Amino acid sequence: MAMTRDEYFMSKAIELAKECGKKGEVPVGAVIVMGNDVISYGKNARETEKNALYHAEIEAINNACKALGGWRLHKCELYVTLEPCPMCAGAIINSRIFRLVYGAYDKKSGSCGSLINLFDVPYNHKPIIISGVLEDECSFLLKEFFSDLRIKNRTK
Amino acid sequence: MAMTRDEYFMSKAIELAKECGKKGEVPVGAVIVMGNDVISYGKNARETEKNALYHAEIEAINNACKALGGWRLHKCELYVTLEPCPMCAGAIINSRIFRLVYGAYDKKSGSCGSLINLFDVPYNHKPIIISGVLEDECSFLLKEFFSDLRIKNRTK
Repeated sequence: MAMTRDEYFMSKAIELAKECGKKGEVPVGAVIVMGNDVISYGKNARETEKNALYHAEIEAINNACKALGGWRLHKCELYVTLEPCPMCAGAIINSRIFRLVYGAYDKKSGSCGSLINLFDVPYNHKPIIISGVLEDECSFLLKEFFSDLRIKNRTK
Repeated sequence: MAMTRDEYFMSKAIELAKECGKKGEVPVGAVIVMGNDVISYGKNARETEKNALYHAEIEAINNACKALGGWRLHKCELYVTLEPCPMCAGAIINSRIFRLVYGAYDKKSGSCGSLINLFDVPYNHKPIIISGVLEDECSFLLKEFFSDLRIKNRTK
């Protein structure tokens, strides 16, 4: 079956998430799209970088600002495999990204619908949200990662 | 009159905010304290860096993670002249900072009491909040900056 446009860009984010998983990072990947071009990438790298800020979305936004030479990403869409946390939802607001597409839901800290929808708070920007795109693939990666981690910890 | 400990560290953040203002940035400064030592600094640099992520708190957290070589800042306090936005409140949660002290309130995007208190959402970390420390000085800097900016724009 042919992929939709959203599924196509989400599959790019999934490829990045898989790369994270191989490095022992929670597998989350993100791409930023302008028009029909991927202009930046991001991968979760909290453990590798030993830094709480290194979520996939933050790296992608940072690279997009550098690529475009400005802080306003109002012509950009963000695709990410996992529902953004409050930090990343706030970064989406601050950078004026106009459309957010995410895959898996995050019941523990998801801030774009699950625990709270930060875009319902009257900040000065409110992106469009599309959720659950390739959800099964995105959440399978996370479940597999945490299952493998539990087995490794048990056999330590 | 002698300064309290909180006022002392806030005055360090105010010095940084003043440096921002001189560079044409909205004057917001932050320091991170561990025990009684300032371990990192941050200044708002959104316009200079052309990047939506360059808030004072983010630079301070980034530098603190680098200084300590880890992403958990659970022994650290963050002092910032302006109430954090959702991105920065989220970064405080993600980095496990145990105590937040801020000066001026932000009615437009303040997410630690004004528009919303993100720390009331059941995330996996909830810092102590102290607000209004040297509030008059912190908010005067902002008012003066925006007043000067309006005059400059009028005479352009």
